[in-house]
Amino acid sequence: MKEKTIESTSNPIVKRAAALHMRKNRKKYQQFLLEGIRGIQDTLSASKQIECVFYESKIDSVPGGTDILQQIRTSKIELYKVTSEVMKKIADTKNPQGLMAVVRIPDHNLSDLLENSQYILMLDKIQDPGNMGTLIRSAEASGFDGILLTGGSTDPYSSKCIRAATGAVSHIPVIELNNTEDVLEIMKEKKFQILGAALENGISYTTVKYEAPLALLIGNEASGIHPDLLAMVAQRITIPMRGKTQSLNAAVAGSVLMFHITDSCR
Amino acid sequence: MKEKTIESTSNPIVKRAAALHMRKNRKKYQQFLLEGIRGIQDTLSASKQIECVFYESKIDSVPGGTDILQQIRTSKIELYKVTSEVMKKIADTKNPQGLMAVVRIPDHNLSDLLENSQYILMLDKIQDPGNMGTLIRSAEASGFDGILLTGGSTDPYSSKCIRAATGAVSHIPVIELNNTEDVLEIMKEKKFQILGAALENGISYTTVKYEAPLALLIGNEASGIHPDLLAMVAQRITIPMRGKTQSLNAAVAGSVLMFHITDSCR
Repeated sequence: MKEKTIESTSNPIVKRAAALHMRKNRKKYQQFLLEGIRGIQDTLSASKQIECVFYESKIDSVPGGTDILQQIRTSKIELYKVTSEVMKKIADTKNPQGLMAVVRIPDHNLSDLLENSQYILMLDKIQDPGNMGTLIRSAEASGFDGILLTGGSTDPYSSKCIRAATGAVSHIPVIELNNTEDVLEIMKEKKFQILGAALENGISYTTVKYEAPLALLIGNEASGIHPDLLAMVAQRITIPMRGKTQSLNAAVAGSVLMFHITDSCR
Repeated sequence: MKEKTIESTSNPIVKRAAALHMRKNRKKYQQFLLEGIRGIQDTLSASKQIECVFYESKIDSVPGGTDILQQIRTSKIELYKVTSEVMKKIADTKNPQGLMAVVRIPDHNLSDLLENSQYILMLDKIQDPGNMGTLIRSAEASGFDGILLTGGSTDPYSSKCIRAATGAVSHIPVIELNNTEDVLEIMKEKKFQILGAALENGISYTTVKYEAPLALLIGNEASGIHPDLLAMVAQRITIPMRGKTQSLNAAVAGSVLMFHITDSCR
């Protein structure tokens, strides 16, 4: 690919990339922004979803910087050399590393996921992008097969979420639902064990007999799982609190449960 | 206690409280700032460590606001009614809830902790205050007895850490060490099982036979446990990564291990 240089922040390619800071534009164009060598390296090896890459010359002096530029130059990905002002407009952080990619949001099929999954994580209106990203990272790492998000969840493709997920979003399907109750009905028909994490009125997570295929629901940080969804849960599970702390961080609770579940099913 | 009203941001009591935004002042005065009804309620019931409380009149309209003011008025804690400008100077958040406390840093004894503990978490140079706070919260919730921090760790009493710990810092001893290797030696003499979380060259955490008293080391987010400390670890333990993600968030990894450990020892 021929490499282009962009020096103006009002260049249309730059403005188009910076537009992806807004959720509505990420939805419209089905693209998101990914920053940094590690995440971009991960996505390069996982998929063909990178549409273009912007770099500052300083990236050459960062470990791995020259290598990844070389890889991109031998691929079909558009590469733009930009000034630090242009990079700041595209990046979300105050001191960008000097490498940004525009990545296509993968198009996952819900029916395929339900057909081929043993372990599904369902997140109900998680609001904090750091929690969402950490849950995506832990789900992928613990061996879960996919993640379903109920309406009203934070955007899994926001830059904060993408940073916390450290590339995992390229390796595990994440699907936003419009009709959560219908999907739970389908899972029930497919004999999924439907489990809901609850602060109370549940049995201890260590005493449950887990049987895949299963779905684990984690609720909103403040209000938990919506009552309409909780009513469809076959088993409420609780992590016993042994001290005076009343609850765990939502990402921690979900991660403790996911690792316990995939460990006990093997 | 007689209640005072403060309207000036240059009032010495206000300046003294706002000085606690800096780590060196928290160390000098052995105090930290705690924001919000929930954390202050927790600390009120746990201990006598609150030195004074600042409130804005709007706190009356927040659920629980009137109650907690009533409790403080019947205690020996100094109470100051302040303007929203004064509150903004003391608080760390952009939209403070309207209730801030100055809390004494508890004075914990290392020998007592080593004598009376079954489960100790040791954090080696954790840098992110959110991770540190989440680890403190999870340690307390999972039934760990105390937390030791190596030199160069982020301050456990910074406002970000205090927020992530949600009051747990009042319920579990946190001790900053100057001499980590000596402390590990003492633990060895006391027959502690010394475990270190490692990304590689460890055995799977589910196959270890845990025997209290034990100490679990979690390393720095980027570089892991320092080689000098890792050399003193009796067993490296690893959480197997089942997907393509190469590592977990440090707070998640520590939490998964702590819950697994206290669950398997009971």
